[in-house]
Amino acid sequence: MRATEAVPETIADPDDPRLDAYTRMRERDFVGRAGRFIAEGEVTLRLLLGQRSRFRAESVLLAPERWPGLADAIAACPDPPPVYCAAKAVMSAVTGFPIHRGVLAVGVRGAELDAAALVPPPPAPALVLGLSGLTNHDNVGSAFRNAAAFGADAVLLDAGSCDPLYRKSIRVSAGAALIQPFARLPAGQDWLEVADALGLQALALSPGAAETLEDGAVPARALLILGTEGPGLDAATLARARPVRIPMAAGFDSLNVATAAGIALHAIARVQGRLDRA
Amino acid sequence: MRATEAVPETIADPDDPRLDAYTRMRERDFVGRAGRFIAEGEVTLRLLLGQRSRFRAESVLLAPERWPGLADAIAACPDPPPVYCAAKAVMSAVTGFPIHRGVLAVGVRGAELDAAALVPPPPAPALVLGLSGLTNHDNVGSAFRNAAAFGADAVLLDAGSCDPLYRKSIRVSAGAALIQPFARLPAGQDWLEVADALGLQALALSPGAAETLEDGAVPARALLILGTEGPGLDAATLARARPVRIPMAAGFDSLNVATAAGIALHAIARVQGRLDRA
Repeated sequence: MRATEAVPETIADPDDPRLDAYTRMRERDFVGRAGRFIAEGEVTLRLLLGQRSRFRAESVLLAPERWPGLADAIAACPDPPPVYCAAKAVMSAVTGFPIHRGVLAVGVRGAELDAAALVPPPPAPALVLGLSGLTNHDNVGSAFRNAAAFGADAVLLDAGSCDPLYRKSIRVSAGAALIQPFARLPAGQDWLEVADALGLQALALSPGAAETLEDGAVPARALLILGTEGPGLDAATLARARPVRIPMAAGFDSLNVATAAGIALHAIARVQGRLDRA
Repeated sequence: MRATEAVPETIADPDDPRLDAYTRMRERDFVGRAGRFIAEGEVTLRLLLGQRSRFRAESVLLAPERWPGLADAIAACPDPPPVYCAAKAVMSAVTGFPIHRGVLAVGVRGAELDAAALVPPPPAPALVLGLSGLTNHDNVGSAFRNAAAFGADAVLLDAGSCDPLYRKSIRVSAGAALIQPFARLPAGQDWLEVADALGLQALALSPGAAETLEDGAVPARALLILGTEGPGLDAATLARARPVRIPMAAGFDSLNVATAAGIALHAIARVQGRLDRA
């Protein structure tokens, strides 16, 4: 039990090189972190350190008063990272903005996954969420949270969708981005080609679809594709996929894209028997 | 047709008193606006000026290039407000932060509505969303968007929930806060007393409930109550209401409160026959 020996190292100097990965946090949100990402808050840190995490934690930075409440999560981590403790004022000086919760970690992205490896082969049931052109980090984070809540096998993102490991995406996902398997669309393949290759039926969620999600049979192997609010999915995808919509009340047919994903995933997961005691 | 005569008045001076209600916008988000609110963006402005709006627009402030695209909405307004045009730089100087879309309006709150007046009397079907202790403006705005999308009769908010007419709540609601009837819980009544008074069955959405939303019969007259993420609803409400939960996948039972509201409202509205072509 090497883990039980973990003792945090206290750091008082904001220029300490052990904290380099935490510096200029907002600027690096935009320019990237060379294969690393930032996780914030206790819920997210526990997922990063836990059994289901897809990623290795490189280090943890805590306000000293957070250590007693998190020592158990560090001790239980199969590969415990170094833990640094610094006062919130030092944390704020390092990151460049006020740190309130006092819980940060750096994770290592590792190699991208291959879509085909994430989806169980036929004839097993499958549920994959496809995000097309989602450039809003809140929406991507919320979509991941819903994918995890309803047990999707994978999330696929096209090149136009933003990074699920962006700092805000992870936070809004409530840490789901760290445990929910995801992959980028394979280069040179569009949504329908991926669906064919993986043996999935492509459902295109679109407010203009004639068929509602409840009208027809839910496929045992589904790729549920969502586009951004406003423009929605491109005509080529809509023409080749099976368009479905969520029925709404007359006069205000407007849903947030992540909420729409949640409702559709819930409906499909329920029929596929993915939900506890459902 | 007085409306067709509407011509915007151009303003170049950020200190022009006609723009007083638009000044110090972020500061006033916190201290309040003496019976007024701010609507931002074209979608929201069109709802504010439209037939279904619950509120009167006191004035509209547009970047000049936005006038041609919005003149129709002003002309169609039954009680058209004065329209001021100012360059985005002037708008930014007035409000105190960078204005990108160039569409703002001031609305008048008017008198608060009475909960009893919003809910159709028995035996008509009824669907009311109750928000308990929701202090996050995004969540309140998202919940309103979902209430409008699924045709809820009303939203009720307790004293601990924040203002649906806060600037960010309106924006996140996609303008639903301007058309969706809402009221505060009557003073001295708790959720169960209100449900009794209005002839509604109180459903308390709670991850710990034994019954799922799909297990039992959906009531013809429902008050769906949601608490904030984390603490959830208080024990007294849970003990006296009918607790229900949304089934989720094992291992990540975490949904955003507004998303949970959307899924539950969709399920109830569908059974109650509120949805188009459902």
